[in-house]
Amino acid sequence: MPLMTRSLAELIGTFWLVLGGCGSAVLAAAFPDVGIGLLGVSFAFGLTVLTMAYAIGHISGCHLNPAVSLGLAVGGRFSFADLPVYIIAQVLGAIAAAALIYFIASDVGAFNDQMAAFTLGANSLAVNGYAELSPGGYGMGAALATEAVLTAMFLFIILGATDKRGHGVSAGLAIGLTLTLIHLISIPVTNTSVNPARSTGPALILAFLGEGKAMGQLWLFWVAPLAGAALGGLIYRLFEQKEG
Amino acid sequence: MPLMTRSLAELIGTFWLVLGGCGSAVLAAAFPDVGIGLLGVSFAFGLTVLTMAYAIGHISGCHLNPAVSLGLAVGGRFSFADLPVYIIAQVLGAIAAAALIYFIASDVGAFNDQMAAFTLGANSLAVNGYAELSPGGYGMGAALATEAVLTAMFLFIILGATDKRGHGVSAGLAIGLTLTLIHLISIPVTNTSVNPARSTGPALILAFLGEGKAMGQLWLFWVAPLAGAALGGLIYRLFEQKEG
Amino acid sequence: MPLMTRSLAELIGTFWLVLGGCGSAVLAAAFPDVGIGLLGVSFAFGLTVLTMAYAIGHISGCHLNPAVSLGLAVGGRFSFADLPVYIIAQVLGAIAAAALIYFIASDVGAFNDQMAAFTLGANSLAVNGYAELSPGGYGMGAALATEAVLTAMFLFIILGATDKRGHGVSAGLAIGLTLTLIHLISIPVTNTSVNPARSTGPALILAFLGEGKAMGQLWLFWVAPLAGAALGGLIYRLFEQKEG
Amino acid sequence: MPLMTRSLAELIGTFWLVLGGCGSAVLAAAFPDVGIGLLGVSFAFGLTVLTMAYAIGHISGCHLNPAVSLGLAVGGRFSFADLPVYIIAQVLGAIAAAALIYFIASDVGAFNDQMAAFTLGANSLAVNGYAELSPGGYGMGAALATEAVLTAMFLFIILGATDKRGHGVSAGLAIGLTLTLIHLISIPVTNTSVNPARSTGPALILAFLGEGKAMGQLWLFWVAPLAGAALGGLIYRLFEQKEG
Repeated sequence: MPLMTRSLAELIGTFWLVLGGCGSAVLAAAFPDVGIGLLGVSFAFGLTVLTMAYAIGHISGCHLNPAVSLGLAVGGRFSFADLPVYIIAQVLGAIAAAALIYFIASDVGAFNDQMAAFTLGANSLAVNGYAELSPGGYGMGAALATEAVLTAMFLFIILGATDKRGHGVSAGLAIGLTLTLIHLISIPVTNTSVNPARSTGPALILAFLGEGKAMGQLWLFWVAPLAGAALGGLIYRLFEQKEG
Repeated sequence: MPLMTRSLAELIGTFWLVLGGCGSAVLAAAFPDVGIGLLGVSFAFGLTVLTMAYAIGHISGCHLNPAVSLGLAVGGRFSFADLPVYIIAQVLGAIAAAALIYFIASDVGAFNDQMAAFTLGANSLAVNGYAELSPGGYGMGAALATEAVLTAMFLFIILGATDKRGHGVSAGLAIGLTLTLIHLISIPVTNTSVNPARSTGPALILAFLGEGKAMGQLWLFWVAPLAGAALGGLIYRLFEQKEG
Repeated sequence: MPLMTRSLAELIGTFWLVLGGCGSAVLAAAFPDVGIGLLGVSFAFGLTVLTMAYAIGHISGCHLNPAVSLGLAVGGRFSFADLPVYIIAQVLGAIAAAALIYFIASDVGAFNDQMAAFTLGANSLAVNGYAELSPGGYGMGAALATEAVLTAMFLFIILGATDKRGHGVSAGLAIGLTLTLIHLISIPVTNTSVNPARSTGPALILAFLGEGKAMGQLWLFWVAPLAGAALGGLIYRLFEQKEG
Repeated sequence: MPLMTRSLAELIGTFWLVLGGCGSAVLAAAFPDVGIGLLGVSFAFGLTVLTMAYAIGHISGCHLNPAVSLGLAVGGRFSFADLPVYIIAQVLGAIAAAALIYFIASDVGAFNDQMAAFTLGANSLAVNGYAELSPGGYGMGAALATEAVLTAMFLFIILGATDKRGHGVSAGLAIGLTLTLIHLISIPVTNTSVNPARSTGPALILAFLGEGKAMGQLWLFWVAPLAGAALGGLIYRLFEQKEG
């Protein structure tokens, strides 16, 4: 299929990832008494990937994440030449979703001031961050280690689960639930990125609204996931070469 | 199989969707201390579809939702001629389930007044709504955008997951968990519909009991999901045409 | 395989169902601050069936429930002649599990009085009941309707998911998650049975310990699930006959 | 594939099991207001195995647990000769993960004293224990019974789900969710081990930091899981022999 068609699928898919993951965090995580909490947000992020994997896996491969695209290229499963267009599409989808979340969240004020307060504060739109932007106050070292190691493991599992020796039908399940697991571990540390596009959407929209702190930390959520993804791609190659 | 047999399966399936989704919301969501919360309700809605997909997918296609039937017709997977009978069956199933939930919930008073209060208030039976009927106080604009976009994405994923190029066995899993994800995002906004039949059942039963507010907002939960579903069906066609 | 071997598998499987479902309810549901709640118990019950389905489905069919065995017989998928031995094995497994839960729960007193109190009260061992034994104070009418309807739907889905026209591999997933869904709806009403063996184990052990109330209500948890299961088996036959 | 390559996969996989399971317990379980609780930790442990099963199942079999390796050997599915190297790799992976959790958790102090307190106390790093180290204050008898019975059931299900008569694709799902279920039952009793490597990693790191209590109880989390695993392997053989 043409690169533009596949990229459009990536744009829609990444829109879904940010709408589902960040949207559930903004709108439902801390809802009074019956909120879905970090467990619900973790499932939401994972289910965006699980569901899109079955919807567009056969169209674009369903990366939804610049780090995944890079890691798959390093692992020999994706073309480096297609990387820039995929990444642009992913970032555009993420920005569109963050804008929609802002539109929905900002329509609450007239009826419920309490709800409006927690959906539109300075740390809002589920931005990623460390130090004063970390949900649990974790520092830059913890953030770098967490994002790099978890993205490396994410790519390792993606490459294993889509290995020719495995079962194709289960890959979407395994990869989606890996993202759930990653969030179960690390939301308190960085709000969990492992995905530069997912970090960029909310940070850009917040900057547009005059809240620039997340933009100042955005570099970490490109550097650590991309480095981790490349590492994960390299590690899995050990297991492919050994078998030949 | 004859249209009447398939429609009977749709009636039973939509009964299950409303009994499971709205029933868990009414009976278990806010149970003191150990209630299942919005996360449990989100799983309940998704699991109604997931489980029925494997039970009646081979009989009726397991739509359980007028918006899904319309979107599948727009996407070229279902006959427009069968649409009216399917929709009538779905609405009847939803009404029956809402009536059963009311019967169960109204049998609590003699033993536990507190429980009776939260299962039978003005906002009860898990009706959909906006403004003063929105769980989080979200306005009509947010409700329209949320219901239309989420139904469009729902149909996009349904069409992708049941595409001939995919794995048939995983469709029920992917589609059911998409409905879980949709609820994780949007219960605070509209109590989540994306399904006109699911909205109609509780609103009708409440109106019968003298609570007419939800009926006054019911139009939105037909217009937005149906428009979104048609849009989702059209968008997925882009990916089918491009491939030919 | 011989009936005795298959029945031994049923005994082990029903032991697992009661240990996992009632055990998680007794030990973990209301653990201070981080307890798993009714959502966790619902997953636990469902996962006992999901996991055993893949472990012993090829040995005994993995019924783990007299109502399921009866419903399958009515639906034409199981021999009426094997019913009594299967049911005896299921009840024995349930009793063994309830005894083990009691052994574990009773070893807590020396270190933590608070924990001991909530695991061994009068309503303990996750017994089923209505009126004063209903977690939410629901009456006998609600209990009868809930148990009969949910067991009928359970059997309907079991028969559909194991239909020759479906995907065998997904049956364990669909059936296990149906039990999760049933618990998400109805724990507040009856503590959820839909399974006479599951009701009998804890009631018998409590009676042995001098708490006889649950035994006095046990009839309902045989009558309603068995009647519902037979009804579910009959309803599904409509869809088999129509297709022939 | 060479034993060393397979063992490297086991090391990575067990690193993932402890990072995901113990990491989510340390970092996210008791996060204020929106913490994932014992339910989230149970899912995390299960998802480590589920996801790795699809990633390295075709490389090493994905045991990630000395008790599983022993039980598979007893059940006739794994070579006793490979047992020592597998177990060493599993323990090394667990230690590495516990060290990383400590590194991340110890980087919180500068920004948030409250968070630091609950991630690094005496009972920290999600160590296993009984009596004063049991989360719910359960005694040694309960701990022995719980760990032995649950590991026996774990092996029984693993052997059944990977039986030639079953569906290979579903084994990872069934086995991963079995571990989730085991945690739903037993975190309050022992913090749940059923895996000597998982117990050893955190206990060793805590001992290195001067907290030796968990090391003094570590014997139980080797003895009970290994004995249970051997028992589970033997029981399943009954069902293989009967069928021949």
